[in-house]
Amino acid sequence: MKELEDRIREQGIVRAGNVLKVDSFLNHQCDPQLFASMAEEWKKRFAGKQIDKVLTIEASGIGIAAIVAEKLGVPFVFAKKTESINLDGEQYRTQVFSFTKKKTYDVIVAKRFINEGEHVLLIDDFLASGKAILGLLDLCKQAGAVVEGIGIAIEKSFQEGGELLRSRGYNVQSLARIAAMDDQTGEVKFVED
Amino acid sequence: MKELEDRIREQGIVRAGNVLKVDSFLNHQCDPQLFASMAEEWKKRFAGKQIDKVLTIEASGIGIAAIVAEKLGVPFVFAKKTESINLDGEQYRTQVFSFTKKKTYDVIVAKRFINEGEHVLLIDDFLASGKAILGLLDLCKQAGAVVEGIGIAIEKSFQEGGELLRSRGYNVQSLARIAAMDDQTGEVKFVED
Repeated sequence: MKELEDRIREQGIVRAGNVLKVDSFLNHQCDPQLFASMAEEWKKRFAGKQIDKVLTIEASGIGIAAIVAEKLGVPFVFAKKTESINLDGEQYRTQVFSFTKKKTYDVIVAKRFINEGEHVLLIDDFLASGKAILGLLDLCKQAGAVVEGIGIAIEKSFQEGGELLRSRGYNVQSLARIAAMDDQTGEVKFVED
Repeated sequence: MKELEDRIREQGIVRAGNVLKVDSFLNHQCDPQLFASMAEEWKKRFAGKQIDKVLTIEASGIGIAAIVAEKLGVPFVFAKKTESINLDGEQYRTQVFSFTKKKTYDVIVAKRFINEGEHVLLIDDFLASGKAILGLLDLCKQAGAVVEGIGIAIEKSFQEGGELLRSRGYNVQSLARIAAMDDQTGEVKFVED
């Protein structure tokens, strides 16, 4: 998606260790008009699919998921990261390792908000190792929900997450796929569509 | 706002200790069409005010802020809760005590995303003690930003936050103001507008 790639070229900051900072428009300060364009693009790419609900994970997926869900006319649910143990049995629970924070979170969603047979679209801001999305897929599997697709804003295609998910048959639609980044020149190269 | 009050009456669950669970439509599973109606209502209530940016705090304020910002045509920023100490000087920082989690968080926002003289609308899902909003106000004060108003979905009017903020001259617009709740009958009484 050209609009997102242009924003990454103009405002993204490449740091050592393949870190891409996009906090001026995507995940700290956020541009909701860009999110609306992204939502329209996913709407096209997932046209014809039944989508009953959007599922994301806190925190930076929430703003994008909210606007996608509004455009699709469906509810959205955000899975919560927690370090506390809650054994009330009312939640689906999985573990996700965060490379950014170097720790494992419990990720939970209330059972009554993902239902058996429900068709779900997963949304997140980044796809790199794929750990967060694998966590959401595990929650959907526990619930017996059908994952219709996975919408990602920025995929780091040089990491394993995208390939792993596509090889398992998931319909992954990443709006910007980064082939390589150079923290010396600041250059970002995208995968040619 | 009748639509929000009706949803609270129909789907809110009153628990002991003045806890109101609205996680089926406001802060876990979320109804973006309701958020769009709320955004239109705030747009009316803050008509004529200059609003350059929407500021909220993670996590449950983000979805609401995203849709409000989209309707206003401005960016939004979410302040981040963190327990880590970062002394790089690039962030405004304050402390917020969470009654729900019984601990104090550092709340941060990157300095480049709140600017001196910028006119800001604060948005959050709940107002009770007011601690989270006081934290956001402190961040705005550090930045020299002008707080044009405070938009709250649900205010617990029997707690001190609303009165405290209004007595300091802030324009607080809560879309549902709860006067009392009864966890035995499940009844919720609203403040008459």
